Amino acid sequence: MDDTLSLVLFSGTDDKLTAAAVLAVGAAAMDRKVNVLLQYWALDAFRAGNVRKDHGVAPEAGPEGQALIARAAERGRVTHWADLFEQAKAIGEVGIHACSLSMDQLELANDDLDGLVDDVEGVAAFMAEATGPVVFV
Amino acid sequence: MDDTLSLVLFSGTDDKLTAAAVLAVGAAAMDRKVNVLLQYWALDAFRAGNVRKDHGVAPEAGPEGQALIARAAERGRVTHWADLFEQAKAIGEVGIHACSLSMDQLELANDDLDGLVDDVEGVAAFMAEATGPVVFV
Amino acid sequence: MDDTLSLVLFSGTDDKLTAAAVLAVGAAAMDRKVNVLLQYWALDAFRAGNVRKDHGVAPEAGPEGQALIARAAERGRVTHWADLFEQAKAIGEVGIHACSLSMDQLELANDDLDGLVDDVEGVAAFMAEATGPVVFV
Repeated sequence: MDDTLSLVLFSGTDDKLTAAAVLAVGAAAMDRKVNVLLQYWALDAFRAGNVRKDHGVAPEAGPEGQALIARAAERGRVTHWADLFEQAKAIGEVGIHACSLSMDQLELANDDLDGLVDDVEGVAAFMAEATGPVVFV
Repeated sequence: MDDTLSLVLFSGTDDKLTAAAVLAVGAAAMDRKVNVLLQYWALDAFRAGNVRKDHGVAPEAGPEGQALIARAAERGRVTHWADLFEQAKAIGEVGIHACSLSMDQLELANDDLDGLVDDVEGVAAFMAEATGPVVFV
Repeated sequence: MDDTLSLVLFSGTDDKLTAAAVLAVGAAAMDRKVNVLLQYWALDAFRAGNVRKDHGVAPEAGPEGQALIARAAERGRVTHWADLFEQAKAIGEVGIHACSLSMDQLELANDDLDGLVDDVEGVAAFMAEATGPVVFV
């Protein structure tokens, strides 16, 4: 069994990106390879200069959920997802790939991407390696 | 191949929790082990006293979708997701774990959780066992 | 290891359906079998006469994201997800199944479904085959 964790990131809200980054860190800590593919709104969040902006939370959170997350941040209990992905890269083999089709649709060039992104990759190439669990966030 | 089904529940709307619970029941019926990790808004839905409240449906459902689900409930065709998870536990090996990081961020203690939740677990421990399919809902 | 890709489609917005269809094409191109289960709002999108309608995009896209997608469509860079699923079926072994429970809850009969859908299937039968990666969209 291939224990590589493949993460397809579609959503670009901070709560979902954090949840995904936590899974990446957890897998890397267990010596598992992690392959991330960035599509649509997640790719948009990984644009250079855009990473640390406020990307909101899932609409279902509502004002009460937003307040909870804000309070957790004030208490110093929230690590930014970009830092979590950095951590994952520091402890394991973690590749972050921009989906070539999404790059084209969002009119992005390689220079538009944050340094966290390793390269641009087609979906077929990504799927060729995704024989272990594939998580869509 | 490990056929354990790992379910990472992030969303807390009733339609998504029902869809996830149906997958858990289906997997348990096929003699597969099921491991559930509760994060964020799903964890919030599993708070004691909160399970049977109305958690809404995904925003994309719109008023038409909401009406359809309400009518299905009136016709007795909707089993509550909490009952589905009970069913899954009754027929198979199903563990429901609260994500320790989400517990901290949402300021929850063990006593705040519904009895359906078996324990609190870190993501790394969860990922160590998640070598079969991992479904993020 | 079973490299069949199982796709559980829950969401019915055009961006998510396109992302899922792209994964299906990518997997089929890599000679992998693809099994799709349609639930809730995705099933609704596969109703006969409904496929080519505008199903919107995820709420998080916002007006800016919607404009980007609209411009990509004008530039001829967006293939409709129904065409992508047709492509996937043409190049590989791809089955599209309507979830029997969702059929019942949405009050749909077989005749209500688009020709892309092969049959109606229960979740347990779907999960019996879903021993490779399971992607929930």
